Amino acid sequence: MKYPPVHYHDYLGIEKILDAQHPVSVKYGKPAHDELLFIVVHQAYELWFKQILFELDSVLATFQKPKVAEEEMGQATSRLERIVAIQKLIMGQIDVLETMTPLDFLDFRDMLYPASGFQSFQWRLIETKLGLRIGDRLAYNQAPFWKSLTEEQQNKMLGVLDQPSLFDSLEKWLERTPFLQGENFNFWDSYKQAVNKMFTEDIATVKANANIPAEEKAKTIEGLEKSLQSFDALFNEEAFNKLRAEGQFRLSYKAMHAALLIQLYRDQPILQTPFRIIRALLDIDENMTNWRYRHAMMAMRMLGNKIGTGGSSGHQYLAAATAKHKIFSDFFNLTTFFIPRSQIPALPKSISDRMSFHYE
Amino acid sequence: MKYPPVHYHDYLGIEKILDAQHPVSVKYGKPAHDELLFIVVHQAYELWFKQILFELDSVLATFQKPKVAEEEMGQATSRLERIVAIQKLIMGQIDVLETMTPLDFLDFRDMLYPASGFQSFQWRLIETKLGLRIGDRLAYNQAPFWKSLTEEQQNKMLGVLDQPSLFDSLEKWLERTPFLQGENFNFWDSYKQAVNKMFTEDIATVKANANIPAEEKAKTIEGLEKSLQSFDALFNEEAFNKLRAEGQFRLSYKAMHAALLIQLYRDQPILQTPFRIIRALLDIDENMTNWRYRHAMMAMRMLGNKIGTGGSSGHQYLAAATAKHKIFSDFFNLTTFFIPRSQIPALPKSISDRMSFHYE
Amino acid sequence: MKYPPVHYHDYLGIEKILDAQHPVSVKYGKPAHDELLFIVVHQAYELWFKQILFELDSVLATFQKPKVAEEEMGQATSRLERIVAIQKLIMGQIDVLETMTPLDFLDFRDMLYPASGFQSFQWRLIETKLGLRIGDRLAYNQAPFWKSLTEEQQNKMLGVLDQPSLFDSLEKWLERTPFLQGENFNFWDSYKQAVNKMFTEDIATVKANANIPAEEKAKTIEGLEKSLQSFDALFNEEAFNKLRAEGQFRLSYKAMHAALLIQLYRDQPILQTPFRIIRALLDIDENMTNWRYRHAMMAMRMLGNKIGTGGSSGHQYLAAATAKHKIFSDFFNLTTFFIPRSQIPALPKSISDRMSFHYE
Amino acid sequence: MKYPPVHYHDYLGIEKILDAQHPVSVKYGKPAHDELLFIVVHQAYELWFKQILFELDSVLATFQKPKVAEEEMGQATSRLERIVAIQKLIMGQIDVLETMTPLDFLDFRDMLYPASGFQSFQWRLIETKLGLRIGDRLAYNQAPFWKSLTEEQQNKMLGVLDQPSLFDSLEKWLERTPFLQGENFNFWDSYKQAVNKMFTEDIATVKANANIPAEEKAKTIEGLEKSLQSFDALFNEEAFNKLRAEGQFRLSYKAMHAALLIQLYRDQPILQTPFRIIRALLDIDENMTNWRYRHAMMAMRMLGNKIGTGGSSGHQYLAAATAKHKIFSDFFNLTTFFIPRSQIPALPKSISDRMSFHYE
Repeated sequence: MKYPPVHYHDYLGIEKILDAQHPVSVKYGKPAHDELLFIVVHQAYELWFKQILFELDSVLATFQKPKVAEEEMGQATSRLERIVAIQKLIMGQIDVLETMTPLDFLDFRDMLYPASGFQSFQWRLIETKLGLRIGDRLAYNQAPFWKSLTEEQQNKMLGVLDQPSLFDSLEKWLERTPFLQGENFNFWDSYKQAVNKMFTEDIATVKANANIPAEEKAKTIEGLEKSLQSFDALFNEEAFNKLRAEGQFRLSYKAMHAALLIQLYRDQPILQTPFRIIRALLDIDENMTNWRYRHAMMAMRMLGNKIGTGGSSGHQYLAAATAKHKIFSDFFNLTTFFIPRSQIPALPKSISDRMSFHYE
Repeated sequence: MKYPPVHYHDYLGIEKILDAQHPVSVKYGKPAHDELLFIVVHQAYELWFKQILFELDSVLATFQKPKVAEEEMGQATSRLERIVAIQKLIMGQIDVLETMTPLDFLDFRDMLYPASGFQSFQWRLIETKLGLRIGDRLAYNQAPFWKSLTEEQQNKMLGVLDQPSLFDSLEKWLERTPFLQGENFNFWDSYKQAVNKMFTEDIATVKANANIPAEEKAKTIEGLEKSLQSFDALFNEEAFNKLRAEGQFRLSYKAMHAALLIQLYRDQPILQTPFRIIRALLDIDENMTNWRYRHAMMAMRMLGNKIGTGGSSGHQYLAAATAKHKIFSDFFNLTTFFIPRSQIPALPKSISDRMSFHYE
Repeated sequence: MKYPPVHYHDYLGIEKILDAQHPVSVKYGKPAHDELLFIVVHQAYELWFKQILFELDSVLATFQKPKVAEEEMGQATSRLERIVAIQKLIMGQIDVLETMTPLDFLDFRDMLYPASGFQSFQWRLIETKLGLRIGDRLAYNQAPFWKSLTEEQQNKMLGVLDQPSLFDSLEKWLERTPFLQGENFNFWDSYKQAVNKMFTEDIATVKANANIPAEEKAKTIEGLEKSLQSFDALFNEEAFNKLRAEGQFRLSYKAMHAALLIQLYRDQPILQTPFRIIRALLDIDENMTNWRYRHAMMAMRMLGNKIGTGGSSGHQYLAAATAKHKIFSDFFNLTTFFIPRSQIPALPKSISDRMSFHYE
Repeated sequence: MKYPPVHYHDYLGIEKILDAQHPVSVKYGKPAHDELLFIVVHQAYELWFKQILFELDSVLATFQKPKVAEEEMGQATSRLERIVAIQKLIMGQIDVLETMTPLDFLDFRDMLYPASGFQSFQWRLIETKLGLRIGDRLAYNQAPFWKSLTEEQQNKMLGVLDQPSLFDSLEKWLERTPFLQGENFNFWDSYKQAVNKMFTEDIATVKANANIPAEEKAKTIEGLEKSLQSFDALFNEEAFNKLRAEGQFRLSYKAMHAALLIQLYRDQPILQTPFRIIRALLDIDENMTNWRYRHAMMAMRMLGNKIGTGGSSGHQYLAAATAKHKIFSDFFNLTTFFIPRSQIPALPKSISDRMSFHYE
């Protein structure tokens, strides 16, 4: 009673929403039954993309601050997890779209030229806000990214590119992670020791094993030595930066270290929420990849080897983008630097104490 | 090139779709973050409801004809199955809405009064077009159904009620099913004999079994006799009509018979598609029921024992409607009249021949 | 190389797993194609129930300790969330089982008597370990719960009942929540004031509104006064205990208060994980409820009005159990005591400080 | 009462099923909590693979007959659709497995060597029964396919390879499709005319359009001419066979024609079920592809760049297999030969009559 009465129908803008479907096949007097489905699926995508962008913006606002407020972290996590939930939902929209057969699609496919299902501007904004850079993008149908946008869209995209992405803000936030060094404790020294110890023992075990044929033994030892060497990237900043320059890593040396710390000691109360944030970002990235792939398979089924509605071999583009448009690959690759929990150095009490609550 | 170029953004009315979210909390200067999610979820529902109505209308157009065209049957089946696919999708929207916590909802709940999440006019149209009659509806919050609609909606609803529903058209179509009687064959006579034989044998088996204690034996025999009696409704039109008048059945005697025939002999080529149609209707009805129930549980979680945003104890209403708003209950109850396949009378060749193709 | 080589096939006990399907219809020489599906679905359920029990046991081990270790909380949360993920998965098994039609089921239904799909002992263990008491259970088919178990099962169940359930342990843990009282701060006094202030203002607003007809105004004011009164249960321990004795609440007064505190101040770092735990329990309970309901609907479709394979009207039992077997209803009802975030009293700095990390 | 009583627990072999989980980490005294999940997920997969094989065998039995019985077609379709439903379900098992983090996996990963998640023999049987030939398989970790199997498995696989696969049987069945030629009607002549007419008109339209710049016009015309030429493979058996020899097609010329006919005239009653069968096979193939891809992404997340538990770069293998192990690619590519429904030649009445029912 404090507010004027609200009517469901008006409040939700139902009229507007339900008046936005205008099949071209109807316009040209050749109504194709399945065109409405095509329109509705894409409109539903756009509604959800708007929601994803909204959540992303609020998470960005939290992480772009020079000091991230602790009381906003839980909320930011929940909002990233909501994005994951939305992604799972819209994955299912492909199942519905696939109730349209290629023959049904053919009834109106020509009328859509040169539009295509891969031109959502909001989708590209999502990618950009997460951290996909222009240079990371595959050329689409030989056309540079910018030419595919309207002038208004270009301006909006420029504005977004001007701001730190979630990748950028997260990197800064990770770099600020404390705990990497204490009075009498240097985490990386102990971790390096643990890694060396583990591999040295493994190599010794193999050498001592009389049951392994000589050739296989040599090969196994070589493999273990290579694995050990790969840790150089973790312990040697110069080596890391060289690989980073070659594109093998994107995160800074310091941020990689922090991310590893969070993963290994996630059970410490203070690292729980950071751990959940990294996990949500892995989920988001993986879901985008899976969605692109499923979309590519659907496009192939719908179009065969024909060129896509946008004039490109749509499914080939999507399949290629699938692999290349990943944003948080570093978090996926980080796994390579994990060692079994039993070998991870214990934290000194002075440090683990600071990672917990003290309310008494 | 035959058609003027189309632009993704314009074609899909993206501007209109993305400009239809107007949170009241923003209007009142108290922006509640989760209100956008609330709006988007409901708008996505309405988009999909429009699609369901569109499919339903096309199926109705097929079945409302005095003679249903054989070449439209496959298409009608696919469209009903598409409705099933959409229902499975939008069931998942509840998972997304539940990422909003009750406390987040409270930030804008009062501002929505007296709107509520159960006022979708399209949802009611779907129910009506499927065959839900006004008298079948639960009063919502003590208010008669009509008063909850605007005048425009009332007129639209009256128009729909004026047309045969899918239930009505299907009943007529079922009543026209041939095969129930051949020259020297009356299906119901043989089915009755099979039923009697089965029960007589079952009763004899129980009687002859020395291992069953007397009391249990008596109870079991009584149960079997009752089951046999329940078949009266199937074999005796008068008995059936009495039960129908009491509300136990809605379909006509003839339509029930045809539906049973389709279920029992579904492997006959000519009954394959009718079988799939009945199955799709069972799916649609069951999904609506499940959706109402999940919605009721979500409402309970969101509101506790508080009254719903529409001023009603929303979740109680939904839970009650769940059971009562079923439309094709007859198809669910039909199962009671099934007997095991090994006991079903074989069709005379003269009849089974007419149920198959003859293209050579 | 540190461990003897493992073979996929042996490691996973594939032989054992794939040798455990013995359709009775085959045994009786009347092979029913769909019986294998029936068996496989139920076996897959049991596998997942074992996993759920395993996760539950590990969470119980954490919460049954007199002082819950902070470093185990994140893990306990993840394991509860894993249970939620498993529940979502197995909900989908109903979709697969429903590809079996009632007629197919009839081919072997009689041979299963008196077994039924609702007799999983592991399912009952899950319910018990979560906190369902014997007295909370609906009688199944007029049979008391105990008689439906074998002696071995009875002993196992007694052992489980002898241990604190998750409900019990959680209640104790909640009761130990600090922060409810500080030096110069009593949370419940300030919350009571906030509640009173809110309702008083609301009532005044309604009274002052000249646009509301007298009768409606009276009714609205009465409603608000009733709502205010319902808070007595929250602020008055005696009133609460009276309602608790009547079965309206199950949690203790103190535990209810702690749960409310967690919900209202979940953004405080220290309450993040507790908040997630309560949310996971709400999810688990709701999923069990939804699963029971979907199962009931499936049973109805499969059996019509016939008695269930276990000799009961299975779907009626399941539908009834749906409502009654909820365990954490208190968390659902708690919502009733929420007030909008803008009205929630701010925590004194001395308290909010203790709710955060201090690592510098 | 006709059969001896059955007990749920015994009937389902629960004891056996629940006694088949033996974590190696427990055996070595270093219990890793998440190993049970790893085992249970894979066992659930194997249960479902057994079910898929069972359905597949029954469909194979139907299609391997020299004349496929019309009354078995509906059933075969439903069983293929059941496989699709199972695939959708088990896709969700990846979501559950992903609740295990890479660090948790590391606790027991080494103990599994050299087993890996890609060694399911049943999965390979499914692929083989569907029609994947040995030569189509990617070498896994440089090892030839046969060496990865035990002797018993090799024998079983040889037996399966000795029988016609579903691909083979389906090809034969397609080749027997009637209707391709009538007294005064040759379908392929009319289809060729329709195709030519369509492209000729399209080219003329482009040529006549003064608004298209010269260069673009030339390019478009060239594209249309190329598309027209691609139809040679459809109309010229020699051209087709040349491409087939190069691996572009696998189905015979005759079978391709029949499949196209089924797709284009699916609304004819007699083609409804064949159409559904092709659609189910497309679904099965696409789901296997999507499953392999999701599995590859999960492996990458779990292992980073480390070698897979089976000693291979598991995710690279899976990602590669994804593309290469498709079986019914021809059905996907067929789309290329579709023309819009409005241009498809109408069937002569003498033919369409034979495609329908005549029960009166």
